[in-house]
Amino acid sequence: MTDAAAPFRFVLVRTSHPGNIGAAARAIRTMGFDRLALVAPAQFPSREADALAANAVAVLAAATVHGDLPAALAPATLALGLSARRREVELEELSPREAAARAVAEAARGGTVALVFGNERTGLENAELACCHATVRIPSVEDYASLNLAQAVQVMAYELRLAVLERATPAAVVTTPAPPPAPVEQLERFFAHLADTLEAIDFHKGRDPTQIMLRLRRLVMRARPDERELRILHGILADAERMAALALGRDGR
Amino acid sequence: MTDAAAPFRFVLVRTSHPGNIGAAARAIRTMGFDRLALVAPAQFPSREADALAANAVAVLAAATVHGDLPAALAPATLALGLSARRREVELEELSPREAAARAVAEAARGGTVALVFGNERTGLENAELACCHATVRIPSVEDYASLNLAQAVQVMAYELRLAVLERATPAAVVTTPAPPPAPVEQLERFFAHLADTLEAIDFHKGRDPTQIMLRLRRLVMRARPDERELRILHGILADAERMAALALGRDGR
Repeated sequence: MTDAAAPFRFVLVRTSHPGNIGAAARAIRTMGFDRLALVAPAQFPSREADALAANAVAVLAAATVHGDLPAALAPATLALGLSARRREVELEELSPREAAARAVAEAARGGTVALVFGNERTGLENAELACCHATVRIPSVEDYASLNLAQAVQVMAYELRLAVLERATPAAVVTTPAPPPAPVEQLERFFAHLADTLEAIDFHKGRDPTQIMLRLRRLVMRARPDERELRILHGILADAERMAALALGRDGR
Repeated sequence: MTDAAAPFRFVLVRTSHPGNIGAAARAIRTMGFDRLALVAPAQFPSREADALAANAVAVLAAATVHGDLPAALAPATLALGLSARRREVELEELSPREAAARAVAEAARGGTVALVFGNERTGLENAELACCHATVRIPSVEDYASLNLAQAVQVMAYELRLAVLERATPAAVVTTPAPPPAPVEQLERFFAHLADTLEAIDFHKGRDPTQIMLRLRRLVMRARPDERELRILHGILADAERMAALALGRDGR
């Protein structure tokens, strides 16, 4: 695991279903994290957790188990509690993105960050939220707030990974390759070939080709073909011309 | 469901485990979406799917089932395929955030957007990605790319919800003029006509057409032709076929 991931701990509180612990382990592992802390899990270790962890069983093996939340949060300099409902508890409420940015900033100054997830049914109790510096609310639909625990963990881990990657590379997270588009010179050669071919296969049938050629130009310009693609298109035109020559040649025209 | 959610469809292709279909239904429902399309699911409907859908069984009940991906994509004007691996297929690769922004812009101009998720083990095949306008890559760790299907759906639905909410607030305004691109159904009809024509003019000359067709698909998908442009292209193909028929007919072949 990268050092960049070390300052972040995912803390699952009073989890009822061991399967969710396994799925959560997998979720954080896919995003490059591996520190899992369990507070009073209903059942752990468990075969079901291992099954749902898939290749992330190492995360489960290294998970720490604690009697209560303060024990699990002991090393944390910033604790953020996931909370579906808006609470009376007047804690600052962050979006997952805001929380990820703050977590990464905290780690950058040498801090340790805990992301805290409550019980599947009841979430985090007020006493548990009181151990957190702020709440994080995933913007699910009001009429249907309940994200599955592992899915809430996935969303938070995803945002945290984006924030970590952003910090690691000032550039965009995902780059888009693709060969460079062909230069205009080659495009013009293609348009000339296309015009000849449309004549050869008698596409215009007496109509003025100007408008059609403009439309086809726009279409091709939009696609921004690369050199290899242009070669394919030239090949198609050449075969169409060949057929036209055969056809009309036989006509004796 | 809000109108804002109507233009977005989540398409699950060849899903092996019915539980994942249920979990995916729940994932999109938590983010305010409800259109689910299933392509050749291993088992559906299923009790396991209903169980994992929790309160989102209505999404499953309304899910459409299709024999192949083109059928599921027929009404889509923008199809984005989730893909863990970087492919040979040189489709544009978007981050989930970029994809969500593009999807919302597409919906804003009256389009219909499909988010396509492949089989749990094998993902989307190249032929399936070839039906998509771009790929979406969730930036999971290189050494451990496999997000659980439902969790990939959750991340994408989460980003899409953020983009929808952002747009709902007058802040972000993404305007896109130009006539709407032709739906996949019409693109597939064009690709079929193109394949026939290339055979007719003997373009392949014994070579396997698969790669060429993939490249041509990519090129056309990138151009995103509208219906009028497709009519012009069909007309060109028809004349090329006519010439081939004359030519080869005269040859007595």
